[in-house]
Amino acid sequence: MDTIQSNKYNIYFENSLSELANFIEQGRYSRFFVLTDENTAVYCLPRLREKLGNPDNFDVIEINAGEESKDIDFCIGVWKMLIDFGADRQSLLINLGGGVISDLGGFAASTFKRGIDFVHVPTTLLSQVDASVGGKTGIDIDSIKNIIGTFTQPKAVFIDYEFLRTLPARQILSGTAEMLKHGLICDADYWNLLKESDLNNPTAELVYKSVAIKNRVVLEDPHEKNIRKSLNFGHTIGHAVETYSLINDEDSLSHGEAIAIGMICEAYLSYKKTGLSQAELTEITETLSNLYPRYELKTEYNDTLLEYMLKDKKNQNGKINCTLLSAIGQFNIDNICTNEELLEGLNYYASL
Amino acid sequence: MDTIQSNKYNIYFENSLSELANFIEQGRYSRFFVLTDENTAVYCLPRLREKLGNPDNFDVIEINAGEESKDIDFCIGVWKMLIDFGADRQSLLINLGGGVISDLGGFAASTFKRGIDFVHVPTTLLSQVDASVGGKTGIDIDSIKNIIGTFTQPKAVFIDYEFLRTLPARQILSGTAEMLKHGLICDADYWNLLKESDLNNPTAELVYKSVAIKNRVVLEDPHEKNIRKSLNFGHTIGHAVETYSLINDEDSLSHGEAIAIGMICEAYLSYKKTGLSQAELTEITETLSNLYPRYELKTEYNDTLLEYMLKDKKNQNGKINCTLLSAIGQFNIDNICTNEELLEGLNYYASL
Repeated sequence: MDTIQSNKYNIYFENSLSELANFIEQGRYSRFFVLTDENTAVYCLPRLREKLGNPDNFDVIEINAGEESKDIDFCIGVWKMLIDFGADRQSLLINLGGGVISDLGGFAASTFKRGIDFVHVPTTLLSQVDASVGGKTGIDIDSIKNIIGTFTQPKAVFIDYEFLRTLPARQILSGTAEMLKHGLICDADYWNLLKESDLNNPTAELVYKSVAIKNRVVLEDPHEKNIRKSLNFGHTIGHAVETYSLINDEDSLSHGEAIAIGMICEAYLSYKKTGLSQAELTEITETLSNLYPRYELKTEYNDTLLEYMLKDKKNQNGKINCTLLSAIGQFNIDNICTNEELLEGLNYYASL
Repeated sequence: MDTIQSNKYNIYFENSLSELANFIEQGRYSRFFVLTDENTAVYCLPRLREKLGNPDNFDVIEINAGEESKDIDFCIGVWKMLIDFGADRQSLLINLGGGVISDLGGFAASTFKRGIDFVHVPTTLLSQVDASVGGKTGIDIDSIKNIIGTFTQPKAVFIDYEFLRTLPARQILSGTAEMLKHGLICDADYWNLLKESDLNNPTAELVYKSVAIKNRVVLEDPHEKNIRKSLNFGHTIGHAVETYSLINDEDSLSHGEAIAIGMICEAYLSYKKTGLSQAELTEITETLSNLYPRYELKTEYNDTLLEYMLKDKKNQNGKINCTLLSAIGQFNIDNICTNEELLEGLNYYASL
């Protein structure tokens, strides 16, 4: 699997932790820092240390695991740790973890002293196929996802398939949802390939293919003016459901579980509005329903869900804007959806 | 006075509030927001409203006046107000105020939903000749100045000389310090012109000249890799004194007062290290001492001041880095200064 060229940086797949060691050696950084969470500190940091030759010139900044850590308060904590450790403008931040680590770490680095270098070492499937590629950084405020952030490219991404072996099945499936989305929006062959694969254990080649698709999209439209919006399929409703669950459920939905719900609802809207066939709607609904656990979407959640959708970054002039499909493998951006339509989409899922 | 072309944006001097009205009309923004502090809300906002034709389609976000408001907590407050007002990605933020407003507002806008447009309407002399030009945004954490920020250019800057008439004398002199710095680092003629002028009431032409100098410097080096560092003259020691005063004094030093102290100390270091003549040191010392009130720098402050200097963004590898002068009108960047040298600089001022 060849190294992928992204927006002035490389995404490494083969011997990627050795590539990271080379990168650090050649980078002439004054210091480096590793941002981990309590899980990656245990399961991933030892492997990283070993591959880097157990250097003693780095400090570790550890945050709690989970989406709650993507809050501005944790970001302030990271900034203060960097200050206390004496990080200067020639420091490097290595984000070792899932999407929370790369989004938060990327934002913290892109704003610390007006920007220091950072790289991602994504350790979850979700972050390997989604968060680590594309140069979006972000944090949440009051559980509104990624409401604050920057467009800043990492200096490199190092994807190590071995890290996936440490993941629980549920986390693997969380990443699979984004892979399925990549197929749905722009590659029907890839969608068909995924349907035939064991998605509880996706191969390295499938992961690679997803990263390549996402990279193609973000390279063409780094600031989300047009084609990049395709990646938002499933996310208008999915993010609202995810936020709702994060606030209200003891055992919250994973990102992928919420996005799978969002994709079913938005596939229904695609069927109603943008020409997705009934057979394709059924195919998408069945594939996703077979993979992901059922979630009870009560009608009493509807007002809150709409309120979250209204705060979505993609909206304009107070109108809710969705990316839909015109067919499997064919996205369709900038569809204004009325509250009634969105509720119909939610209802489609609820009544399955 | 012609409009100055900066880094893909214009700096307007003539009829600038009418130009702002044009800018808004042509910008097709969904909404606009004015960030003010409690002073500019009273002294400047009415004039702005009037010039804009008393529009009703904007909301005002008001923060407390003063450097304390540049803290991350106030920034979070601005973000939350933007969320509550329903700001979308097509919104415009107008920063109406001094350097705190432009630095904080610029940072808040550059990170809100990964970046919305903003313009500056600087209302203090200091912000007209310094903060509003150059694309630096920033906020403080734990009183460490501008430790968090981005390089993001405003979409335009509208300088209205009339606003200066509302300012108290002390605020005018705070801005004059940066104007004098512009002369010292790269324009001996301008320095001489300033010395002969009434600096309690600088003319519009003098203000214009300072903006032009700053703009020339930042255009050549937007990310402070080399020549832009010239603007840091006086700021290594000056920022430390400013932070100290902000935390400890009931009536804190203004930015310009602190920078004037920093320039005297660093002129001394320039005399010791980079070839500034004794006559020039005397000229700088006398000019600044005549303009700014004396501040008692006790030796017991030294450890704290050095600690602040160590946290300065410009440092590398834990070494304190100063911009000095080799002559009046000739800067000299990247001078590592030892603690002993810095204390000598402080002592020079203290023993005047």
